[in-house]
Amino acid sequence: MKILLKNAHVCHDAYSGFRREDLLVEDDRIAGFFGPGERAPQDCAEKDLTGCMIIPGMVQTHVHLCQVLFRGLADDLPLLSWLKTRIWPLEAAHDRESTYLSAMLGITELIAGGVTCVCDMESVRYADEAARALAGTGMRAVFGKVLMDYNDTPEELGGMPKPFFETTKETLERAKELIDAWHGAENGRIHYAYMPRGVLTTTPELFQELIRLSKENHCLIHTHACETEPESLLVKERRGATEIKYLDRLGLAGENLLLAHCQYVDEEDLNILEEKRIGVASCVLTNLKLGSGIAPLEKMRHRGIRLSFGSDGAPANNNLDMFQEMKTASLLQKGVLHDPTAMPAEAVFDIATMGGARVLGMEHEIGSLEVGKKADLAVLTADGPETAPLQMNAAMLVYSGNPHMVRDVMIDGKWVYRNRTFENLDLERLHEEALAAQKRVAEKVL
Amino acid sequence: MKILLKNAHVCHDAYSGFRREDLLVEDDRIAGFFGPGERAPQDCAEKDLTGCMIIPGMVQTHVHLCQVLFRGLADDLPLLSWLKTRIWPLEAAHDRESTYLSAMLGITELIAGGVTCVCDMESVRYADEAARALAGTGMRAVFGKVLMDYNDTPEELGGMPKPFFETTKETLERAKELIDAWHGAENGRIHYAYMPRGVLTTTPELFQELIRLSKENHCLIHTHACETEPESLLVKERRGATEIKYLDRLGLAGENLLLAHCQYVDEEDLNILEEKRIGVASCVLTNLKLGSGIAPLEKMRHRGIRLSFGSDGAPANNNLDMFQEMKTASLLQKGVLHDPTAMPAEAVFDIATMGGARVLGMEHEIGSLEVGKKADLAVLTADGPETAPLQMNAAMLVYSGNPHMVRDVMIDGKWVYRNRTFENLDLERLHEEALAAQKRVAEKVL
Repeated sequence: MKILLKNAHVCHDAYSGFRREDLLVEDDRIAGFFGPGERAPQDCAEKDLTGCMIIPGMVQTHVHLCQVLFRGLADDLPLLSWLKTRIWPLEAAHDRESTYLSAMLGITELIAGGVTCVCDMESVRYADEAARALAGTGMRAVFGKVLMDYNDTPEELGGMPKPFFETTKETLERAKELIDAWHGAENGRIHYAYMPRGVLTTTPELFQELIRLSKENHCLIHTHACETEPESLLVKERRGATEIKYLDRLGLAGENLLLAHCQYVDEEDLNILEEKRIGVASCVLTNLKLGSGIAPLEKMRHRGIRLSFGSDGAPANNNLDMFQEMKTASLLQKGVLHDPTAMPAEAVFDIATMGGARVLGMEHEIGSLEVGKKADLAVLTADGPETAPLQMNAAMLVYSGNPHMVRDVMIDGKWVYRNRTFENLDLERLHEEALAAQKRVAEKVL
Repeated sequence: MKILLKNAHVCHDAYSGFRREDLLVEDDRIAGFFGPGERAPQDCAEKDLTGCMIIPGMVQTHVHLCQVLFRGLADDLPLLSWLKTRIWPLEAAHDRESTYLSAMLGITELIAGGVTCVCDMESVRYADEAARALAGTGMRAVFGKVLMDYNDTPEELGGMPKPFFETTKETLERAKELIDAWHGAENGRIHYAYMPRGVLTTTPELFQELIRLSKENHCLIHTHACETEPESLLVKERRGATEIKYLDRLGLAGENLLLAHCQYVDEEDLNILEEKRIGVASCVLTNLKLGSGIAPLEKMRHRGIRLSFGSDGAPANNNLDMFQEMKTASLLQKGVLHDPTAMPAEAVFDIATMGGARVLGMEHEIGSLEVGKKADLAVLTADGPETAPLQMNAAMLVYSGNPHMVRDVMIDGKWVYRNRTFENLDLERLHEEALAAQKRVAEKVL
């Protein structure tokens, strides 16, 4: 199956600018680019994209799809109340259907905003429902259930409801069921990753076992680290090292480790992140809204630390909008930590595309538009007043761009979103069912 | 002329929540609200708004419409290069047509984003072109030409091109022409305000004269203050007082003074702002992108200082998007200066609506939906994934909202934007002409 995307302005990657080209997709991959003077193949379907832009699909590397259902239920609260009175009880009250609907809400928001790959940390239970939603919508994803076999989080740091905890054996068995069912599924579109929640809820034995298993199964390990100051201090006190140094000592530090957040990092932590090539998933808006600090992204970038962005959870953000993440990430580094030259637009857009691909170990498959790579892309229009007079460049995307510019999205060579519509999906019905599920779940615990 | 807006969810003000009501507009004013059991008049036109929300039109209190044309020409630059190599020369190179087109771009972006009133600081010349655009689009506005009769800004602080300066007599004469032509025009929709650029470019004599004239003509005085640290320090050195104390000593401090920015304020300045009831127009995104600091908005709010928001200039922002201003304002106070309970959504939406009305002295006319007030309102739809599951409240608007939710806008009882379209305005042509004008102006100086 061949399709020629004609007459678009194509952005190959964050540093390439936009070129007037035809882009050839063959099955699930990009098969060629043809400039104005070049002869494109004649034996294929065609789609005229005159006036449109094509950009690489963006990659979000830390999202809890299971929390999207709770958007709007936890605003303006102090972090501890946010966790103890909202997020934990709500997540624990999920049923199968509500977990599926939550994932569907998140995936549709991500795709409609030009994101073609997500790293999704699910709750303890029902992660297969998220996988089902990921498979059905055509999304590319790395997902995993959260693993927790130890409760070392004191009540005053938000505690953690008992039903979340499993024995080491149980948690590994459930992970095995998921990996067997889903790792490499859907033409390799779905990957499984091991996702221990964090240092305080994971036994050293589980961490050790995950090192072995992740090698055996070629999986990422994804966890939270250095997110809040009190938790970081507690880890130091109880483990005698910062979270990153502790993980390094256990042998987890490496290219297949992806850490969400990383605000509270010292120079030694930065050295480890850099030398061991650990990936960072920065959640800029969530950290700001919950008062969890600002990660030193510009400093990390200059050290060559591998960076990416994630929207985290809708109750803490409240959107899964990569354009907002990009702009806010840049503006915070400019306005709070550095100066207006910090985090220039090209670097920011690179983090949102290739950066995400790199930390997920997919840099040879996605993150940019190149011959041989997967056809994961977004078609944008820019006819609104917010981008006029139109300059087609990374700065326009980062500083003036928004999800509503996204008109079509292709993942793995398939249109998953066309003319701002999901085919075979009744969005209005989804939203009604989600609202009913939100009420049902919230009534159990709030 | 009567029109009944039927079956909408109506938000009277930031603290009222949303109610299912019919809203009656008679000529330019709100004439009544009718709840589900109440009998609405039968003798009027009707518009069914089932499923839609109606909110008060938002008010932006510091925008340079003359800069919108330069969106995308000044990104990732240090503040001084931004001023000296871009903003000043570009503004000085404006012609009549480019000034008009710039205003049209800005006004359409504002209206399409639910803003129904703007305080626009124009350049030295051609402010009548902005007034023409404001009149033609149906926008409500306070506008003024910038007044500069003294050059006390050293080269190292950005300097200021000579053509900007006028004698005191000239600058007042040109202001008089504008006030005679426009103050109170269009059924009172257009107001003139005196807009000295700042302390370092205004003689004390001009300031004194503006006090007299503003009383005589019932006009606001609007100026920049405490925007950057170097300029604030320079004022202290040269005037022997902070900008706010200097303005107070001259006799300008009062309800009809509106100051843009106000990041660099000490306790005494805060006392003056509070006691003299000076209005503040905070430009959150611009200040962040240009590294000009974060205004202590939460502190100001708790002192009862009169706050409002402005997007400032598109080359520094890069949108005139009140939703972004609201969210970023709240998140910065939460994440950088205070904690997650700071600047709750209702307070933020109040600043974006009534706050703007108050600092412009229009709180009895606009800023909320009340019987007898002007019919300035926005009709929103929320069928996108980014607001699902939908909670109709201020938090949804502030944390998940965006300009693309705005479907229709009414100003002064007239629809100026309907079904996401400007009637009698070819937006595509406007954007083409603006792009050509941008090139023409930029080629003169860049």
